[in-house]
Formats: sequence, structure tokens, C-alpha cells
Amino acid sequence: MANINGIAASSGIAIAKAYQLVTPNLSFDRKKVDNPNEEVERLNKALLTSKQELEKIKEHAKKEIGEEHAEIFSAHLLVLSDPELINPIKEKIKTENMMAEAALEDTANMFIEMFKTMDNEYMRERAADIQDVTKRVLAHLLGVTFPDPALIDEEVIVIAQDLTPSDTAQLNRQFVKGFATDIGGRTSHSAIMARSLEIPAVVGTKEISSTVHQNDMIIVDGLEGIVIVNPSEDDIAAYKEKQIAFGKQKDIWAQLKDEPTTTSDGEQVELAANIGTPDDVHGVLNNGGEGVGLYRTEFLYMGKSDLPTEDEQYDAYKSVLEQMGDKPVVVRTLDVGGDKELSYLDLPKELNPFLGFRAIRFCLENEPVFRTQLRALLRASVHGNLKIMFPMIATLEEFRQAKAILLDEEENLTREGIEVSNDIEVGIMVEIPSTAVIAQQFAKEVDFFSIGTNDLIQYTMAADRMNERVSYLYQPYHPAILNLVNNVIEAAHAKDKWVGMCGEMAGDPIAIPILLSLGLDEFSMSATSILPARTQIKGLSKGKLASYKDKLLNMATAEEVVEFVKEKAK
Amino acid sequence: MANINGIAASSGIAIAKAYQLVTPNLSFDRKKVDNPNEEVERLNKALLTSKQELEKIKEHAKKEIGEEHAEIFSAHLLVLSDPELINPIKEKIKTENMMAEAALEDTANMFIEMFKTMDNEYMRERAADIQDVTKRVLAHLLGVTFPDPALIDEEVIVIAQDLTPSDTAQLNRQFVKGFATDIGGRTSHSAIMARSLEIPAVVGTKEISSTVHQNDMIIVDGLEGIVIVNPSEDDIAAYKEKQIAFGKQKDIWAQLKDEPTTTSDGEQVELAANIGTPDDVHGVLNNGGEGVGLYRTEFLYMGKSDLPTEDEQYDAYKSVLEQMGDKPVVVRTLDVGGDKELSYLDLPKELNPFLGFRAIRFCLENEPVFRTQLRALLRASVHGNLKIMFPMIATLEEFRQAKAILLDEEENLTREGIEVSNDIEVGIMVEIPSTAVIAQQFAKEVDFFSIGTNDLIQYTMAADRMNERVSYLYQPYHPAILNLVNNVIEAAHAKDKWVGMCGEMAGDPIAIPILLSLGLDEFSMSATSILPARTQIKGLSKGKLASYKDKLLNMATAEEVVEFVKEKAK
Repeated sequence: MANINGIAASSGIAIAKAYQLVTPNLSFDRKKVDNPNEEVERLNKALLTSKQELEKIKEHAKKEIGEEHAEIFSAHLLVLSDPELINPIKEKIKTENMMAEAALEDTANMFIEMFKTMDNEYMRERAADIQDVTKRVLAHLLGVTFPDPALIDEEVIVIAQDLTPSDTAQLNRQFVKGFATDIGGRTSHSAIMARSLEIPAVVGTKEISSTVHQNDMIIVDGLEGIVIVNPSEDDIAAYKEKQIAFGKQKDIWAQLKDEPTTTSDGEQVELAANIGTPDDVHGVLNNGGEGVGLYRTEFLYMGKSDLPTEDEQYDAYKSVLEQMGDKPVVVRTLDVGGDKELSYLDLPKELNPFLGFRAIRFCLENEPVFRTQLRALLRASVHGNLKIMFPMIATLEEFRQAKAILLDEEENLTREGIEVSNDIEVGIMVEIPSTAVIAQQFAKEVDFFSIGTNDLIQYTMAADRMNERVSYLYQPYHPAILNLVNNVIEAAHAKDKWVGMCGEMAGDPIAIPILLSLGLDEFSMSATSILPARTQIKGLSKGKLASYKDKLLNMATAEEVVEFVKEKAK
Repeated sequence: MANINGIAASSGIAIAKAYQLVTPNLSFDRKKVDNPNEEVERLNKALLTSKQELEKIKEHAKKEIGEEHAEIFSAHLLVLSDPELINPIKEKIKTENMMAEAALEDTANMFIEMFKTMDNEYMRERAADIQDVTKRVLAHLLGVTFPDPALIDEEVIVIAQDLTPSDTAQLNRQFVKGFATDIGGRTSHSAIMARSLEIPAVVGTKEISSTVHQNDMIIVDGLEGIVIVNPSEDDIAAYKEKQIAFGKQKDIWAQLKDEPTTTSDGEQVELAANIGTPDDVHGVLNNGGEGVGLYRTEFLYMGKSDLPTEDEQYDAYKSVLEQMGDKPVVVRTLDVGGDKELSYLDLPKELNPFLGFRAIRFCLENEPVFRTQLRALLRASVHGNLKIMFPMIATLEEFRQAKAILLDEEENLTREGIEVSNDIEVGIMVEIPSTAVIAQQFAKEVDFFSIGTNDLIQYTMAADRMNERVSYLYQPYHPAILNLVNNVIEAAHAKDKWVGMCGEMAGDPIAIPILLSLGLDEFSMSATSILPARTQIKGLSKGKLASYKDKLLNMATAEEVVEFVKEKAK
């Protein structure tokens, strides 16, 4: 038995067997073969088995994550039957008396090297496809098991170094009861994904993937950030009780589902959710969300071979707006670049992508892409309560330019006889320090602000939150962050505008009293955080918290802030 | 004749022939040879010529840039006589009837590939050495000229896509009259280098290296940012006059060399210089510098195979302090990482190095390296007027920790009976937005601030200044920058502390009136900017400028600021 500590990334308790999501050892000794025909036969068999597996995974993926995102497996299947790849392998086996493994590896590597060196993101992705598929075929040739998360058919806890978006896309959600990973923090992809799937997760354990064996019994305590490997009977019993208690807690939270979010002294705020796809709306309503505070539209553009059409986008936006009824839906226009690449756009490789050509910077230089999205949004606006916001705004000129393009498309649509809502609010994300500092200037021109703390913190602290060496500097409670947030709120309120927050900070129990103290109007978070947040807010007095504001803003360190909040802001 | 526009990076006029600093075409057709012995002979000859050239370059480099930095050429010479590299080449020629060129290229590539894939910065540098040397030998085998900037022996203007630190280290400064490059901005390495060499330069022309031919006549107008290729007689005459006028202007400036820097209404500020080595002090004093506002100590650590010893550092610091007499010398502790790599430290590769493990972050985790530097500084402190500042401070905890280590070493030295000055001021660079925002908290604990605008601007705007796609967002006059600078100055003055600025902005004629208006105390810039700045400041009224302060701080865009300054702040 071993207890491993990590970061509590998604709450709840899970108890199940470990499923190790790691690539097996695919090394082998090279030797010449006497019977090349036998090798070709082995290769054919491995190719066939791989093909059958991929077909199955593709079907699963279609059901779980939608047709579009399953396309990656079509690409993999194409590789498997590409004569330009397969024939040279067979040729090599026959002419050089090579083992199938060696011939496969050498031929694949040749193509991979060739594609990789091409200065073209699309070809580099083809190299990645060949690499993925080669590993699978090689595993079959070597008789070792290749992990197929899509094919999981019993309850498991997934153990991995890290979960990439492509890993999670393949998970069979019905059977995955929890995650535990070596790396990542509360804002990493795997953490966000776990919260959106509403399954417990502990991340950043550093050692879980090397400690746990396949089929070990595992308890993931996503409330405390602990993973227990091969627990005792007593442990299991105790955690089953904790699981039941958490279930009851959730039932209590659920009673607040249709209540307004009101502090103990009667002040009301709005609790909204961050979503990525129309499918997420169900979870928002189920968890008592009063709106969508951030609809990340990138998912429409990802895992595809080309840009989404205006109609595809219109359908998605309309679906979200209709499902939300008269509740507000804040849609963020395309935020691509940085850590979010789109293969078909062939964006330049950058030395510091987080300080690079992304989001509104990309959109203003690629107007046709931007206009298509804006037209789809404007057309969808009549189906609900739409608000539009532009990401990564650093200068007023950018906002003015983006808004002018929006108004231009509105005119175009009206001229074409297409109806557009006449009360769409247009705002910006505040995630760049410059914009937070001169929020007074922006407040004269925007309809609202939404503070994106994930980026705002990393730029304000000059620390990449994905970089483990400096992640200790990613400090949401640093007094500079509080002062910037306060400046935005004061500037907005002076002009009767509202301010939301859509970074991870908005749902954080330590941050919530601070944000109430500063007067934040809207809190947008993972859907599953809404009910706990509502419960917390009902117990807090906004008036009392507001009296701490000056003190909080004049603290020297994040540590002081946290200590004060823990002691006073209850 | 053609006029090419670029960015004026270093002032003055240069007229001379073009020297194209580009790698020649080194491709060749492969064929088998009949007489391998002849090939070995050709190889031996090319190796010998290369060796003679490198010896000559090494001698030049020693004189120009110092023994230490010339070590790179010793490494190159070692490669040339390494039997582990040379023997396999000859073997290949003889056993495979290969051309010398092909045998050299294949063997070298094998080693380069091998070294490159090693996860060790030192071995990767060896790969770079082999690559450099191979190119030289290949050029001799092919009979094409390999550019050797160290061997220039007539007056030239260097034309290049970009100049790397290693390129400029090799330049024979006596004959290089100017630079013109395709890429870079006012803060790029080549621009800073040109100003430190006091030669005219135009950077960021986009097209100069592909437009100009070797030995074309060139005029570089570093005042206007124009390059004229093959000028007419009239042009040459006109620019010679402009050159003379600029010389006269410099003479007028020179009269202010020993004057204090006083505004028209009698307010005094300090004009200091940024330096990288003890050799730079001469230029500081020659240009009327009243102090060193930024001594970048990285150069002590660069172009070497190991860390500098305490004594090596002591000698350098002592030399600068002694030369400067009682004038203040602000030394910045090691700022490594980001775009500044040290091969022997084997720093991790990072996705966003500018937001990564650098400067004080590195020093606090590598205390022995940090303590060695602090001891050297403390020992040198008795030789002049030393002030120490820590770079990349984002939290008060970092400052406290760094200062505690400094005090600890001071105690150690005192205990060892070594004398240390008792009035060393200890301050910080303000280059991270968080620190500018809560300068009020820092002002209680530091002795002074020095605002590093190059980084502060790129973090505040979330735009990598080296990335051409977003360099338009690197806006020194953005009102957010002015507000942050103002906040630092107000916080410092409230506690009777002084504020300097050591980014490029401090010497910029548009920024100077703004900074006077905000009350900046010390301006640290390229030595050659000091006298023009003093001239400008003598003509400005600080009182009148201060009356514009609120207006400037409440502007909406950088454009508004620039327009206002151009019109009013004269």
C-alpha cells in the first residue's frame, strides 16, 4: 500500500483497477531471416489486426466524441493501406532478408524523417500519423499489448504521465472512473477534462505512472489530492463511506440548482459555466448554471482537416443559444495559436508561442476566417441571448478594428435580408496586463469585460504556467493580480458596465471571497464547480468582505493574502 | 541605384563598399573518383589552408575581443586536427572511391547527427563547431570564397540577413564602417552592438542582403534609417556633407561631456550608460556618462566552457569600479536563460523561454553560482561606488531571499577578514508587470528601482519583441506602459527612493520628455546616446512637462501619446 500526494484537480472519490496508459517497450534485436515469405505473412497479419482495431476505435470515437473528431482514425486507417508505405516494407523484407519489424521500422522512419523536415504543419502531422500507426503494428508483430483507451470495457482508473487531448478523445467515458497523472496542475488539460467529465482526478503526483502496475487497486481522492495504491480493506470501506458522503453533499448542492446566487446580505451575483461544445450545455443546466460565461469556439476548428464552414458554425452556436434559452451566452471568437495549433492553417513555429501570433492577432490578419465566424454568430444571435467577446486584446486599436469588422458584417447581413438581434453586447477578454492597466480607457468603448485569469496571471508574473520550473510563480493571489482585477472592476462600474471572470480562479474557493470583496459581477467556471460555489457564496457577506478590500489590495505577498482569507473571509 | 528603408539603429553616415556576410553555395554533384590518393591530397591541402586561416582569425579575435572569447577558434582548430574525424574521411575516400567533398560531408554529418541527438548542450555545441569547420573546408575543396569577417582589411559596410553575437565577435572593427541587415529592430543584438561600436547601422530592411552584391557602393544613413545602393556622384557628395554636419553635431555634443544634465528650469537628472564589459567603460566616460546604470554581467559567463571563477569576476568588477571612480555603477546579477543560453549549464529547453527559468529564478535555485558572483561583487565594492540589482523579480519573497543570501555572504567575508563597503545600495529591476503594479510594497524594502523596459513592454503587451509577426505590439508609448512606469516612480518617491530606467526606452528622444514628465531620476542608455540626450534635456522644461502628466496617463493609445509629445513636449 502506498499513499501518493498530488493536486486535487476534480472532486469526488473513485475506486477501481488501474489502467496504465503508457506505450509498451517496442525495442527488438535485429537479425536476418531465412524465410522472407513468412515475414511478409506476419506483417500482413499485424496490418490486418491493426486495421480491425482501428475500425473499432473509430466507431467508438464517433459515438463518444462525434464524427468530426473521429477523423483522426480515418487518417490512421489510410496509412495502414497506403501502398507507398506498405510495398517498400515488403520489398525490403524480400530483397534484404529483413525481419518484418526492422523493415517496418526503417521504412516508416524514412517517411517520418522526410515529412518532419518539411516546413509544413500538415506534413508534420502526417509524420505523427505514421508514427502512431507504426507503433501499433510493431506491437502486434512483437506480441505486446498496445493500450487502447477507446476499447476499455470495465471500470478503471486511468494512470498516465499526462493525458493529451488526443488521449482523452479516445477514452471510453462510460468506464473511466478517475484519472491520476504525473504532471499537470489545476489548469492543465487533463484537470479541465476531468471536471468536465465530472470524474475525480489527482494530477501532478510526479510518480504515479512509475509506481502503479496494471490492475493494481486504486483509490483516487479528488477532494484531498491523494491516490492510494493497493488499499487495505479498511481503506476501501472508509473511502466508500466518503464517497457516499460526497454523494450526499452533491445532493444538497443540487437543491440549489434553481436558486439565485445570493450572499448572506442579499447581494446577487451570476454563476456561469465555461463550455467547449454544444454537448456541454446539458451539464451547465444540470449544475444550475445561470449562463455560459465562456464558450471556447476553438473546438469547432480542431481535429479537422479544414476550417469549419459558416453553416457548421451557425448550427453549433444556434444549438447552444437555443438550449440556454434567455440565459446569457458569452462567445469568445477564435483563440488559436499559442498552445493551440490548427494543422491546416500552417501557423509559423514561434520561439515564445504564448507571446506570439494568436487569437485576435491572427483574426485581424486573416479577415476571411474571422468574418465567417462573425457572420455565423450574428445569424445565430436571434436564437438566444448572445454576447460576443474578443480574446487577447492588448490595444484599443485592436478592439476598434474587430468591432468595425463585426458591424460591417452586421450591415452585410441586414442588406442580404437576414435577421440579426439588435442587442448583442460586445466585450473583450482582459488577459493581457496592458488592458487591465488601462481598463478605464476600454470601459468607454466596450459593453463588458471578462477577465481571463489563466493568461493574465502568466503574463503578469512572466511565468509560463505549463513550465514546471516556474509554475510556483503562477500565483492567482499575488497582490498584483488582485490590483489588476480591482482596476478592471472599478473602471467598468464607473461606466455602468459589468465584469465577469472566466479563468480557473473564478471557481476557486479561496478566490471567491476576494472576488466578492472586489465586486466581481459574474463568475464563470467548470459546470461542476457552480453548486459548491453557490453554497459558499450563500454563506458570505459581501458587505463585510468589501470592508477588507483596501487591506487585501495593500498586501505584499500571495501568502499574506491566503492567510488573511482563510482566517477572515468565511 | 536603389533606396532601401529600414530602422535607424545607430546614428551617423557611412559610405563604403558592401561586404556580403553570407554563406556561399556549398552544394556539389557526387561522382566516384578514379584516383583516391589525389582526393586525399586535395583534402590535406584544404585542411591546411583552413588551419592557416583559423590561426589568423584567432590572433585577430584575441586582439579585438579578448583571449577568452577567441577560444571558440581554438575549438575549431582542434576539430581540424582530430584524427577521429579526419581518418574516417580518408578511409571513406580510399575504400569507396569517394570525392573528398562527399567523404567530408558524410563523415561530418554522421558526427553532427550523433552529437546533436545527445541531450547535452555541450555536445550540441561540438556539433555546431564541426558544422562550421566543415563548411570552411568544403569551401576550399570547391574553390569558393568563405566569408571571413575577421580578415577584412579594407573599409566596408557589412551586409547580412542578421548578425549573431558570434558574427560580430569576429568582425575586424577597424575596417567595418557600418551595418545593414534584413531583420532586427532597435533592440536587436546587431543594433545594440552597432551603437556600442559607434558605427552607423540600419536594420530590419527586409531585403538588403538579397539586393546588394559584393563590392557594391553603399551609403548607410543611420540617422534616417535609409540605405542607398550604388549611389550617384551627387548622392555621395550630399551624404559626405551630411557626414560632416553630423561630425560637427557630435563636436557640439562633446562640449557637454563634462556638464551636468540639467533641464531648462534647472532640474537635474542623471544620464548613465549600459555596459557589458570593462572595455566599455572608456566609451562611457568619453561620452560624458555620469555613471553605469546597467552592467550586464552575462558576458563574463558567455563564450566559455565553464563558469567564471570568483577571482575572474572580481577582476572585472574591480576594473569597472576603479575606472568609474566615485561615479555609481549598478551591477545586475546574472541574467541567464530566456534568449541567453550557457552551454555548460545545460539549461532545460523550454516552450516559452521568455516566460521561463531565467535570471533570479535560476540563481535562487543554483545558490553556489549566485554566491560566487555576490562574493566577487562584495569584494570589489571597496574599489568604487557599487550598487547591486537583481533581475526578473516577480515577488517580494524572491527579493527577500536574494538579499538574505547577499547579507549572508557579506557576513562570511567579514568573518574571513575581507573588507566590504558598508554603503552598497541593493535594488531590483522592474521588468515584470507584477512588480510594477505593487511597487508600493517593494518600495518599503529596496534601495532603488531600475525599470527594464525591453522586458516590461513585452510582458505587459504579451508580445515577443523578437517575433516579427507581433513586433508591432511592442509599444513603448502604450499608455499602460506609462502608467506602470509612473506607478513605480510615485511609489519610490513616496519612500525617498530613486528610480532609473535601463531599457532602450531611456535613450529614445520621444520617450525622454515623457519620462521627465513622470519624474524619472536616472536614464541609462547606450553610451553614444548620452550626449544627444543631454542636449535634448537641456532644452526641456521639467515643470511644463510635469503639467502634462495626467493628460499623458489618461490617453487611450500609443499613437495619441506620440502625437501629443511631438506637438507639445519640445
